[in-house]
Amino acid sequence: MDVKHYMQQLGQQARQAGREISKADSGRKNLALLKIAEALSASSAELARENQKDLQAGKDNGLDAASLDRLELTPSRIEAMVEGLNQVAALPDPVGEISQLSYRPSGIQVGQMRVPLGVIGIIYESRPNVTIDAAALCLKAGNACILRGGSESIHSNRAIAQCIGKGLAEAGLPLAAVQVVETTDRAAVGELITMKDYVDVIVPRGGKSLIERISAEATIPVIKHLDGICHVYIDGKADIDKAVAIAMNAKTHRYGVCNAMETLLVAESIAGQVLPILAEKYAEKGVELRGCLRTCSLVKKAVRATEADWHTEYLAPILSIKIVADIDEAIAHINQYSSAHTEAIVTEDYTLARRFLREVDSSSVMVNASTRFADGFEYGLGAEIGISTDKLHARGPVGLEGLTSLKYIVLGDGHIRQ
Amino acid sequence: MDVKHYMQQLGQQARQAGREISKADSGRKNLALLKIAEALSASSAELARENQKDLQAGKDNGLDAASLDRLELTPSRIEAMVEGLNQVAALPDPVGEISQLSYRPSGIQVGQMRVPLGVIGIIYESRPNVTIDAAALCLKAGNACILRGGSESIHSNRAIAQCIGKGLAEAGLPLAAVQVVETTDRAAVGELITMKDYVDVIVPRGGKSLIERISAEATIPVIKHLDGICHVYIDGKADIDKAVAIAMNAKTHRYGVCNAMETLLVAESIAGQVLPILAEKYAEKGVELRGCLRTCSLVKKAVRATEADWHTEYLAPILSIKIVADIDEAIAHINQYSSAHTEAIVTEDYTLARRFLREVDSSSVMVNASTRFADGFEYGLGAEIGISTDKLHARGPVGLEGLTSLKYIVLGDGHIRQ
Repeated sequence: MDVKHYMQQLGQQARQAGREISKADSGRKNLALLKIAEALSASSAELARENQKDLQAGKDNGLDAASLDRLELTPSRIEAMVEGLNQVAALPDPVGEISQLSYRPSGIQVGQMRVPLGVIGIIYESRPNVTIDAAALCLKAGNACILRGGSESIHSNRAIAQCIGKGLAEAGLPLAAVQVVETTDRAAVGELITMKDYVDVIVPRGGKSLIERISAEATIPVIKHLDGICHVYIDGKADIDKAVAIAMNAKTHRYGVCNAMETLLVAESIAGQVLPILAEKYAEKGVELRGCLRTCSLVKKAVRATEADWHTEYLAPILSIKIVADIDEAIAHINQYSSAHTEAIVTEDYTLARRFLREVDSSSVMVNASTRFADGFEYGLGAEIGISTDKLHARGPVGLEGLTSLKYIVLGDGHIRQ
Repeated sequence: MDVKHYMQQLGQQARQAGREISKADSGRKNLALLKIAEALSASSAELARENQKDLQAGKDNGLDAASLDRLELTPSRIEAMVEGLNQVAALPDPVGEISQLSYRPSGIQVGQMRVPLGVIGIIYESRPNVTIDAAALCLKAGNACILRGGSESIHSNRAIAQCIGKGLAEAGLPLAAVQVVETTDRAAVGELITMKDYVDVIVPRGGKSLIERISAEATIPVIKHLDGICHVYIDGKADIDKAVAIAMNAKTHRYGVCNAMETLLVAESIAGQVLPILAEKYAEKGVELRGCLRTCSLVKKAVRATEADWHTEYLAPILSIKIVADIDEAIAHINQYSSAHTEAIVTEDYTLARRFLREVDSSSVMVNASTRFADGFEYGLGAEIGISTDKLHARGPVGLEGLTSLKYIVLGDGHIRQ
């Protein structure tokens, strides 16, 4: 197969389908989502069978247990995909929404209309459920999409693509609105991220190395997040109970997620009270502590953190801890080491809370709440296609709105410019 | 001078100043704008003297009359810069504005806060007034900026930079919040558009070739517009008077602007009525007409348009005209040839107006209004740094909001994720 030619063809078809889907009314898009859900439910045996091929190939190729787990389509995961489709169908349609329409002194009315981006390219790794999640969000936002999953999940993705095609056909929408790349050739990715004429934005989902490579090579805008080096700062005026609850939740609720805390900053005036309590609780959970010099003198079990620790997203039961003089030092540390994902302060001080909110330049900034809340569902977006640590276009959890743009509309009655 | 080192230094200083200015309150930013305006007024003799050096050098180097005109700082242009500063000072401060703050089922409050982008690099050609316009908008939006004007206006820009520095100092803001690149070495641009660590977004202002080159070479996001191939479609249900007024205004109000009409599409059912009237009026204005075969049979003075005409932004008294069957053919033509800047329909038909608004994918879409309204001032943005024909981040006229981003804020009371 000529990969370049194949991808160009997908691109042309996506561009054409994108024009169609951008005009589709909400009822038809929702019908497609519900029909895809029905097709998935009806095909669960088939999906399990195809998934089994991927799992077997994965075992044969020596995939590790974590990857095999991500790859598996259990009945409850199929059910979750069905549930996700129903949820996205229930969300309000963002497309065509008109805002801020008002009269100008010239007599024209000016407002903004929310419009689809066009064609979205999604590149992801082993989880086959991303195929459904991404397709559902793109479809609802009026975009065509080209989905490039990991080669290890190709059979599963093809089976899911069958269900998507069935749902689109039953709703009378073009099949090319959602296309799954059928080749595992890596050159397909290189083509996808440089087809400027056919693809408007790339959303990579996966490990840091995948995202870095795609960002470096793409000539199309990329909505990405690289790291989640999230901080919690326990201020001198913190409520100890809240501080302990938040620091524990942010680190230990789940370890392998981007919104988990990786570095804890503690004001020196409260460190003696709060760190011993936390150290004991972290020990119960088996969390390894790496601290600054002063932390190590307070917490005997802590080992010395190195410069590299402040830069590291552990995604594991490891936490770095630094004692700081005050909020200034905390914010300076965050500005230097944070990946601009999510930071939280724990304080009862009104003025410091207000300062932290304004001055910390991350995609989510929190007061007295766990960093684990940085999530599209928790924020009420209904669903998310990822979390952006970029500043332009979309920042933080990206839901339907992040997959749209705004155009200006002008209504007149024969108005001309003087 | 080591250009790379010099630019890196500007970048570091801008990054630091950006942090300061992002925290500056509205009063201080407005004070700086007003003090810069005062300094400009007080320095008009000095500005004229420095501008004279640029004009003389321009003449010596054989600059054409149009470029020399753009370069000139007349008293009324200095007055316009002062007026612009006062206007930007009077605009509401976008920074820190919190929207959509609401309670979620978990008990946390989630909202979005408008925040500066950080450091903006502006690259422009001969007009020295851009130095003030760009600096004012960046400053008000809480950003630091690095301004790289054309080498032909270096003396004027340096003199303006003196005034900016004076205003910043009087308001107690860091001087590096606005830096004018003092070297005319072209390598400075190459450095500016690739200093990822220090610059967050590039805004090029100038001719298409400048913008294409910068877009191709930049590794930093670019807010740009390339072309303004704007269309007016006169529908079969158009009011003839409105159609004539709009088609004349869109083409002849000003020729060299990006929101001027370049191609007129006319429904065949009305062409016989409207084209002869328009042809006569265009002839009075000296506008050359290039038409499709059917246009030429209706309008004797029209010459045959070639395929290239539909792709061309004339920026001159030339208009291409095509007779189309209906709105479907009009939209198809626009989708194929438009630069996605601004398109207008003239019609009294409710359903077609609604369709045109939804289906035409340009940064401004109008009904019964002249394309010349596509402008930040006319839209009520107060000022504009340019017009974006991109879809991501900013689309259409870019004002203060386009120089900001949104971060999520979360307010809790010790909330943790279940």
